[in-house]
Amino acid sequence: MEYLHSLEFIVRDYECDMQGVVNNAVYQNYLEHARHEYLQAEGINFAEMTAKGINLVVVRAELDYRDSLQNNDAFVVKSNLTRLSRVRFQFTQDIYRLSDNKLMLQALVTGTSINQRGRPFVPEALERLFT
Amino acid sequence: MEYLHSLEFIVRDYECDMQGVVNNAVYQNYLEHARHEYLQAEGINFAEMTAKGINLVVVRAELDYRDSLQNNDAFVVKSNLTRLSRVRFQFTQDIYRLSDNKLMLQALVTGTSINQRGRPFVPEALERLFT
Amino acid sequence: MEYLHSLEFIVRDYECDMQGVVNNAVYQNYLEHARHEYLQAEGINFAEMTAKGINLVVVRAELDYRDSLQNNDAFVVKSNLTRLSRVRFQFTQDIYRLSDNKLMLQALVTGTSINQRGRPFVPEALERLFT
Amino acid sequence: MEYLHSLEFIVRDYECDMQGVVNNAVYQNYLEHARHEYLQAEGINFAEMTAKGINLVVVRAELDYRDSLQNNDAFVVKSNLTRLSRVRFQFTQDIYRLSDNKLMLQALVTGTSINQRGRPFVPEALERLFT
Repeated sequence: MEYLHSLEFIVRDYECDMQGVVNNAVYQNYLEHARHEYLQAEGINFAEMTAKGINLVVVRAELDYRDSLQNNDAFVVKSNLTRLSRVRFQFTQDIYRLSDNKLMLQALVTGTSINQRGRPFVPEALERLFT
Repeated sequence: MEYLHSLEFIVRDYECDMQGVVNNAVYQNYLEHARHEYLQAEGINFAEMTAKGINLVVVRAELDYRDSLQNNDAFVVKSNLTRLSRVRFQFTQDIYRLSDNKLMLQALVTGTSINQRGRPFVPEALERLFT
Repeated sequence: MEYLHSLEFIVRDYECDMQGVVNNAVYQNYLEHARHEYLQAEGINFAEMTAKGINLVVVRAELDYRDSLQNNDAFVVKSNLTRLSRVRFQFTQDIYRLSDNKLMLQALVTGTSINQRGRPFVPEALERLFT
Repeated sequence: MEYLHSLEFIVRDYECDMQGVVNNAVYQNYLEHARHEYLQAEGINFAEMTAKGINLVVVRAELDYRDSLQNNDAFVVKSNLTRLSRVRFQFTQDIYRLSDNKLMLQALVTGTSINQRGRPFVPEALERLFT
């Protein structure tokens, strides 16, 4: 499978819980950071968008946990983006452990873009991703 | 809809991100805490299970974000549990804002129980939940 | 010792790290939440202040970790506030485990209030705390 | 000033709070990760120590917040380690923003090493750091 964007990480000990593995919620942190870095690479800065009153929001996340990342594991988040409708965007995001290229997590994250009144609003910068 | 378990929370400011709303990942923290409190109320202590080498793990999470919790919002996580198979358990978890009883998030969280070698293992305490 | 404000918490499992105890950084979350609840009780809403361009910021934190909170521990954060100077405020915050009233952490947290240009600015609502 | 160890980071958006800056507690995450990477580079793996029943614990942290890291900021945590007594170790840790080499935070973090009964115990691997 081809991906638009890849970002490498290393597990930090504070991300692990009492089971000694990365806590489930932390994967959403990894995925968000990878999405924002992808957007940044495409000229879309999340903080600037927020400051302008354009909120990129997640409306749905599906996460399949295949195996558990542990302390010191190096891993990569690979992301693709497709447009589901005029105002819905879907990231396909997979996490692979680098030591053995094992698929650890598969995610589908659907987002939209809204203005300050909560109405769908797709800024030109986002439109450009799909042209 | 009837629920087996309800747990009230209040949003803490550090849980909010630069958009001024609860960060997406934090909902998984809320859901986990509600699940563990439910299990605790049923006599299953997560830390004791972990210490015995029994790991309760999430294998899949589906989250539909309906609206955003904000600073100071009081809310309730309502949970149900069903058995999908001998070794798979599914929590249905809904989050309602208390001020107006609005549904903010719907989640389906599938878990299983494994022993130290990663093999499915359902301890008696978990079995008892379904008898 | 007398305190101005007390807030009870229970440890959530996701706050514990691989040592099975509450991670060091999480205590700052507890302390912040207690401070903001204290301010809220005094009519100062942190989010509203932020929206107005008034940033209450921590300039120094000293934390003495006496013992470790563990899963399920109920505890209380007790806080006092004194004014160090016109623009410096110090919270004395102590955490006690409820089961045995043991002192778990002592903290001194110094804060100030700045406007959008980063200049010291003490809003009337804060002034009122000391009159 | 000379440092024993340096580790570069980039701020992740989920680490920022409603003020649009890195939340105070998150700096302790950064500092911990830098300490553990330093120890790892010296052959001391935090997770392995924990698994053996040796707990490296923080007993005191002093943090001076000089300025606020913001979204996308690249920064470096620089660390030194000195021995305060047979069983007390102190990390001096400074955070600099990379764009202008500005000092953002200064920290003193004192730790000790205890065994499973909570007694001071300094393993040989730690002793070797000071010989």
